[in-house]
Amino acid sequence: MYSHCLSGGWILGNLIDGTQAEYVRIPHADGSLHHLPPGLDEETCVMLSDIFPTGLECGVLNGEVKPGDTVAIVGAGPIGLAVLLTAQVYSPAAIFVVDLDEKRLAVAKRFGATELINSSSVDAASRVMALTHGVGVDVAIEAVGLPATFEICQAIVAAGGHIANVGVHGTPVKLHLDRLWDRNVSITTRLVDTASTAMLLKMVEAGKLNPTSLVTHRFAMSDMLQAYDTFSRASAEGALKVIVTGPQ
Amino acid sequence: MYSHCLSGGWILGNLIDGTQAEYVRIPHADGSLHHLPPGLDEETCVMLSDIFPTGLECGVLNGEVKPGDTVAIVGAGPIGLAVLLTAQVYSPAAIFVVDLDEKRLAVAKRFGATELINSSSVDAASRVMALTHGVGVDVAIEAVGLPATFEICQAIVAAGGHIANVGVHGTPVKLHLDRLWDRNVSITTRLVDTASTAMLLKMVEAGKLNPTSLVTHRFAMSDMLQAYDTFSRASAEGALKVIVTGPQ
Amino acid sequence: MYSHCLSGGWILGNLIDGTQAEYVRIPHADGSLHHLPPGLDEETCVMLSDIFPTGLECGVLNGEVKPGDTVAIVGAGPIGLAVLLTAQVYSPAAIFVVDLDEKRLAVAKRFGATELINSSSVDAASRVMALTHGVGVDVAIEAVGLPATFEICQAIVAAGGHIANVGVHGTPVKLHLDRLWDRNVSITTRLVDTASTAMLLKMVEAGKLNPTSLVTHRFAMSDMLQAYDTFSRASAEGALKVIVTGPQ
Amino acid sequence: MYSHCLSGGWILGNLIDGTQAEYVRIPHADGSLHHLPPGLDEETCVMLSDIFPTGLECGVLNGEVKPGDTVAIVGAGPIGLAVLLTAQVYSPAAIFVVDLDEKRLAVAKRFGATELINSSSVDAASRVMALTHGVGVDVAIEAVGLPATFEICQAIVAAGGHIANVGVHGTPVKLHLDRLWDRNVSITTRLVDTASTAMLLKMVEAGKLNPTSLVTHRFAMSDMLQAYDTFSRASAEGALKVIVTGPQ
Repeated sequence: MYSHCLSGGWILGNLIDGTQAEYVRIPHADGSLHHLPPGLDEETCVMLSDIFPTGLECGVLNGEVKPGDTVAIVGAGPIGLAVLLTAQVYSPAAIFVVDLDEKRLAVAKRFGATELINSSSVDAASRVMALTHGVGVDVAIEAVGLPATFEICQAIVAAGGHIANVGVHGTPVKLHLDRLWDRNVSITTRLVDTASTAMLLKMVEAGKLNPTSLVTHRFAMSDMLQAYDTFSRASAEGALKVIVTGPQ
Repeated sequence: MYSHCLSGGWILGNLIDGTQAEYVRIPHADGSLHHLPPGLDEETCVMLSDIFPTGLECGVLNGEVKPGDTVAIVGAGPIGLAVLLTAQVYSPAAIFVVDLDEKRLAVAKRFGATELINSSSVDAASRVMALTHGVGVDVAIEAVGLPATFEICQAIVAAGGHIANVGVHGTPVKLHLDRLWDRNVSITTRLVDTASTAMLLKMVEAGKLNPTSLVTHRFAMSDMLQAYDTFSRASAEGALKVIVTGPQ
Repeated sequence: MYSHCLSGGWILGNLIDGTQAEYVRIPHADGSLHHLPPGLDEETCVMLSDIFPTGLECGVLNGEVKPGDTVAIVGAGPIGLAVLLTAQVYSPAAIFVVDLDEKRLAVAKRFGATELINSSSVDAASRVMALTHGVGVDVAIEAVGLPATFEICQAIVAAGGHIANVGVHGTPVKLHLDRLWDRNVSITTRLVDTASTAMLLKMVEAGKLNPTSLVTHRFAMSDMLQAYDTFSRASAEGALKVIVTGPQ
Repeated sequence: MYSHCLSGGWILGNLIDGTQAEYVRIPHADGSLHHLPPGLDEETCVMLSDIFPTGLECGVLNGEVKPGDTVAIVGAGPIGLAVLLTAQVYSPAAIFVVDLDEKRLAVAKRFGATELINSSSVDAASRVMALTHGVGVDVAIEAVGLPATFEICQAIVAAGGHIANVGVHGTPVKLHLDRLWDRNVSITTRLVDTASTAMLLKMVEAGKLNPTSLVTHRFAMSDMLQAYDTFSRASAEGALKVIVTGPQ
């Protein structure tokens, strides 16, 4: 469990400065870096440093997505989309994506969602239950970090199913143990371990995954402020992931 | 997942009458009954019909108790004690038992608890955290069904740990996702499947488990009302499990 | 483990007559039959009765095929091809298929093999080791049932890898424990349990798997002898699976 | 899989000199050493460096020993005894130990074997099959490294069971795939990873395991030759593990 290593864990950008610099010194580099496979472009690898392992580990692996499963992803921001892309590696039968934003839902459609649910216009939980004939989903993945979206997950998880929390929450939520105590469900949380990076690299090399599909904008390091500005208005700009390229 | 079988599941005492009768007809008997091993007494087998599989499946197996683990069981009623007895099968390093009742704690001690915590006199969570040097427990098992005891479990689960809910809850509880989102924990619920009955039978036959240690009272069927009366004052009577014997 | 159920297991066509009849009585039908999903054609379902669960369970699941894995399938007959089709559900990085017959290899190519190895013209083991830079494959699946093909599997399995035996063997084989004792490998055998039928049905319904791609010939029940004749000359006829349709 | 780490693995006493010296330099020490828990004696820890993780990982964990299982350990040398001691952590119902040497069998009895089988006087396989009413054992652990003992394991493994190879083999063995192809068994090999050392330390600290029970002789480093001499006549001397103490 690298994420909670007593002398390691989440250091960069948390306990010390992050990596937006020309050169960085990486703690525990001997055990934490991967060789770039020859021919793999750097943008792809940037996507494998955090967002793809997060989607895969916290969402897909913790949710135990299996072939034939019905999956709901609540939240179609970059992290929800990373869940969507990595979930397909396990061949679920259906992936419902829930969001308030039509533009994001359109991206989700392009990335393989089998059903889009705009929760600004329909009751998402009712819609998922109708689509699953009252059974609910095998895996509900929370990719927002709000009480309302966690509520949706609890309302739609099938008996024997999994709620995999990916979102960063700022407040407690209500857990309906009075309804869930006998439903054989699991609820999981996780800070990404990046234990799946080697597997992701192999999938990318084999062409099974295209992480750069999340990159919408690119800036030179000298335009860093503009990059942040764009990312801060992600919705208006249609921004998913923003690459800052180093000096050549 | 027998507990949620669409044509089976929890039928006896739930959808139809239970088994407190001279003769009963068991639905799906072909696939749901076990042969009594020769020489095994009936009281032992009664304990394997519900309470021991519940403790083992909902508590120990869902909590993924491993050799060397630190385990806390919150609640020392019959079900908490069944968790305590079955957890030891996996050789955890320590089992803390939390309850308000000194008599129940004394029974827990006799049944193998390594540390007793009376939550009427000390803050249970603080005590567990002190005992674990601030790390918390690998497995916290909720065996009461109240918001307060579920709170304790959330306060003491270590990073990477498991909260296995066994208690029947009547109200929602507060889930501290703001503290737990990055702690790599799992929270599980379960209606017993009795999928572990065959394994329990083998353990009992081999003398690795003595389920009748939970039986404190015995009544003839003609004294059924007295049996219920005793069980309704379980604490005062020191009652754990009450056996009603059939007519000879 | 349905395959070794003491009162069930492999009955049809083994302990009693099989199902090539207008009507059949199925032992343990209550617990062993699946409802045909509306709209699913019968040919598809015939493929799910034996060959697809066999490929998936004995080959892919026992071999623990994971995303990014390198897989070798030794033997491209119908069962090897069923392994090939079901393995892709888990997104391995590469699937090498080994056979002596160019026609079968051509089918394997069409079904998703990433590399074809004709063992009549090249040394299959050497070729696989060269393709994997001396590492070997994560999963080697034996789908023939001969000492020579089991030898290939032993020669190409990587440290930590799996040999999943699917073939029906008529003689003992040589196991190179002097080379494999310290290689952290598993070797598995299995009679199909058809425990995966429900999952396969969901995948087929979702369009993730097309089992009828294995069907090459169709005969009326009145032409049964011709059907057997064709199947007995499978290689010359290019026959994979032969469907016998019932009387209308 | 530390045992096959490309820049690590089995180095000491294999690729470079071992640790029979006053001071040693350990490659990859940052990631491969454990702190001695205060109060734990050094002899105990020596037992955790190789023989106990080997017994636990290659034998017990690879064999997937579960509560209620029937286990056979073929070979009662030090490594077979380490398997015997660590298997009990998972509460199997019965452990049969097979050996040619009465003295070793007597030690096995003292260490918890439930049945002793002297294969110099009885046919071990027939005896195990009789004891299991023709079913065979859930787990057969090969702890010798010879074709004859591997034969016993194949003859006694139950359908669905596991053969965990621990012995170091110098020649190939015969694998009866003609009998085992449909028996749903696994056969595993493993070079110890010492991935279980932290768990073993916790069990030892909790008093769940007493590794020094394997230590029969102690020598000062200045008597090293005598130590080797004693160990070379292990059977006559009743030697299991021999401790060489460093200079004080």
